Amino acid sequence: MSDIPSSVLSHIDQGLDASLGRLFDVLRIPSVSTDPAYAEHCERAARWLEAELGGLGFEASVRPTPGRPMVVAHYNAAGGANAPRVLFYGHYDVQPPDPLDRWTSPPFEPRIVTGADGGRQIVARGAADDKGQFMTFIEAARAWIAAEGKLPVNVTILLEGEEETGSPSLLPFLKANAEELKADVALVCDTNMWDAQTPAISTRLRGLVMDEVTITAPAIDLHSGLYGGPARNPIRVLTRILAGLHDDQGRVTLPGFYDGVEELPPEISAQWKSLHFSAETFLGEIGLSVPAGEQDRSVLEQLWSRPTCDVNGIWGGYTAAGSKTVIPSKASAKVSFRLVGKQDPLKIREAFREYVQASLPEDCKAEFIGYGASPAIEIPTDNPQLTKAAEALKEEFGRPAVMMGCGGSIPIVGAFRAMLGMDSLLIGFGLPNDRIHSPNEKYDVASFHHGIRSWARILGKLKM
Amino acid sequence: MSDIPSSVLSHIDQGLDASLGRLFDVLRIPSVSTDPAYAEHCERAARWLEAELGGLGFEASVRPTPGRPMVVAHYNAAGGANAPRVLFYGHYDVQPPDPLDRWTSPPFEPRIVTGADGGRQIVARGAADDKGQFMTFIEAARAWIAAEGKLPVNVTILLEGEEETGSPSLLPFLKANAEELKADVALVCDTNMWDAQTPAISTRLRGLVMDEVTITAPAIDLHSGLYGGPARNPIRVLTRILAGLHDDQGRVTLPGFYDGVEELPPEISAQWKSLHFSAETFLGEIGLSVPAGEQDRSVLEQLWSRPTCDVNGIWGGYTAAGSKTVIPSKASAKVSFRLVGKQDPLKIREAFREYVQASLPEDCKAEFIGYGASPAIEIPTDNPQLTKAAEALKEEFGRPAVMMGCGGSIPIVGAFRAMLGMDSLLIGFGLPNDRIHSPNEKYDVASFHHGIRSWARILGKLKM
Repeated sequence: MSDIPSSVLSHIDQGLDASLGRLFDVLRIPSVSTDPAYAEHCERAARWLEAELGGLGFEASVRPTPGRPMVVAHYNAAGGANAPRVLFYGHYDVQPPDPLDRWTSPPFEPRIVTGADGGRQIVARGAADDKGQFMTFIEAARAWIAAEGKLPVNVTILLEGEEETGSPSLLPFLKANAEELKADVALVCDTNMWDAQTPAISTRLRGLVMDEVTITAPAIDLHSGLYGGPARNPIRVLTRILAGLHDDQGRVTLPGFYDGVEELPPEISAQWKSLHFSAETFLGEIGLSVPAGEQDRSVLEQLWSRPTCDVNGIWGGYTAAGSKTVIPSKASAKVSFRLVGKQDPLKIREAFREYVQASLPEDCKAEFIGYGASPAIEIPTDNPQLTKAAEALKEEFGRPAVMMGCGGSIPIVGAFRAMLGMDSLLIGFGLPNDRIHSPNEKYDVASFHHGIRSWARILGKLKM
Repeated sequence: MSDIPSSVLSHIDQGLDASLGRLFDVLRIPSVSTDPAYAEHCERAARWLEAELGGLGFEASVRPTPGRPMVVAHYNAAGGANAPRVLFYGHYDVQPPDPLDRWTSPPFEPRIVTGADGGRQIVARGAADDKGQFMTFIEAARAWIAAEGKLPVNVTILLEGEEETGSPSLLPFLKANAEELKADVALVCDTNMWDAQTPAISTRLRGLVMDEVTITAPAIDLHSGLYGGPARNPIRVLTRILAGLHDDQGRVTLPGFYDGVEELPPEISAQWKSLHFSAETFLGEIGLSVPAGEQDRSVLEQLWSRPTCDVNGIWGGYTAAGSKTVIPSKASAKVSFRLVGKQDPLKIREAFREYVQASLPEDCKAEFIGYGASPAIEIPTDNPQLTKAAEALKEEFGRPAVMMGCGGSIPIVGAFRAMLGMDSLLIGFGLPNDRIHSPNEKYDVASFHHGIRSWARILGKLKM
């Protein structure tokens, strides 16, 4: 029971070499965003994409920003305004290729090599991050148009050129062009599969709230001999407060902290258990062996569906070489909370500050600086577009897509929700061994091929 | 029942103006030790002292060091080798006078002013620290020799010129000249009275042991989103460990920490209670109001007779402006313990390290760097020379000397014990409002006069 004409998949399969040829064309453009010397190459990449998308029948334009330009392209399907519209996001800029001497071939001269597993790999800077990934979508669109004369849904494509430098122009651009860019759902192709055989959709991104606290005890730095004993030491106060943030089971002690944290739906829980994720390998790679989070939670839960509290920085007193007999006036720490479910970042910041204030001994003062505060993002498992995309991936790969979490945040997803009011489906075909940001970055030809076929199927599903 | 001929005290009283004149002579020499531009003045001060002491019948010499010279002078009393010998220590170097514009008169042009209490004050850099103080001893010696023809005991005088720069040449000099400098007791005149009416002997100096600990958890710095939860955070580990060093009553929790800590002798305890020390004033001056040490101890006990544990520095992770979502690989702290009684600094360092190791969660490693380790110094209240000096001070002031403690350490005292095998009597006539190291440093004429008379009495007592 497929929703995709066989003509489209045939076109993809027969045209794979041509698709690779076009990918190679864009990989040859060294569109490094961080180095101004490459600005003209970024401009060239944007123009190349404008021409490609224009050639497919998109209304495509290169849109200037204070930094690297955006490419925006619209395709209006036959259904007109009543048909669903998807916004596809990718980025054409790449990381610098340094260190050059660690590449086995020039980073902007893409080539196909045979990997250790016998599979073919595309090697070039940007092969996986993100040119190979976004080209899967463009080639899927090409196949639909070539085989069926049109796309099954309305499509807007947004490709930015500053993702590797923190996307400084993105939010202003979204704000200025919100009406133009609005869609029913966003499709983001910048993430990984679970493994080479198993597709994945990242449906959970943790939120984040950060706070800095400075505790002041004596008015001035003191000599620890002449004052040690009766003088309150702010480092001691701070360490007691920070040590009290977790209980012995690794849970955060702030009142109300777990409000809005929900248990995993049973089917997700079952799926994660079935993944046979190796905590040993995951922790072993960073020199650890024992999970440090909530003791009654698996490592995947600790990473993807449970909130955390971490101290990201601490300082006070004398920190250079040698010793100094000082009781400092102040001590500070930067504390952050990763959030899940419906946890309210501002309420948690408030709970942290109230806890600090309530824990202060007499004579101490606490001051705070708040940094980012963004809630978790979770695509509900019954989201209809998610369901359709998952079906499409299952049909392509012959096994269900893993509903993955991501411990960090992906700013574009928050921005799409906050500024354009839509959810994002994070579907990508990268693999953990793609060496993104490193020498000899690669993208499996199988990823590229499956990716094109997957998007073609997803577009077919989303039509309904 | 005095042990001092009235002729000596008369000589002192009648000769006070001449004594002040000689003090002014040495105050006029700008013997700043930290600035090489003043090296010749230090040399000049040493020569002046050599001449003065030689004129009194001392065998005096200026002794070169890699820095500023020492002055050493020996006086052999009639009793010969059987008579007791005292080693008097002081320092002729002074702090720089900056900021000059805050002096109401030139710092090296001493003058007498009338203080707010109506008393006469000597104003000059070095008036109290330490020229005025050591001149009390030299003038006492002069009076004995003038009135009685000789000193009642053998005396060695050691005056250094680097005290304000950390005494870099002192230990090597003591080591190289240990036989020459050995005596039955050292007399150090660089401390304060309890108040203008009450003499004091500092009989307790706390010891010190310092350690630096670095906790390593993950092998590398991690992204707190991608690893937060399962990844062990070394700052969290460190804060828990440091927070566990004290219990809720402010006592240090290390096993065996209080071994060798003794209760105050009842007479000292009673004396300290009778002092009506104002904790409110002491703490108020540093912006505090509530003593932070052991809850069942007075502030004077917390400062003078009880050990402490302080964190002098802590650092880990991101400490600059803004935020960074990092779980660092390492976190460090500098910890120090002030010691009293017979606490063993090396045992306490070992107890600290064992506690840290025992508190480490799996996957964590602790590394240590040890800094200084010196035991407390306590002159027993039944020390015969202390008893004699206390009697002399009581006779001079008409009230008992306070047996003070000092929360910090005075390195010379440890060096005299360690290298010359003798105790030190710390007797000085400074006052807390003498503004040492600050503009308009002063020394009360009453301090100078009482000081000379006190040393004359002490020398008489020590003869027996």
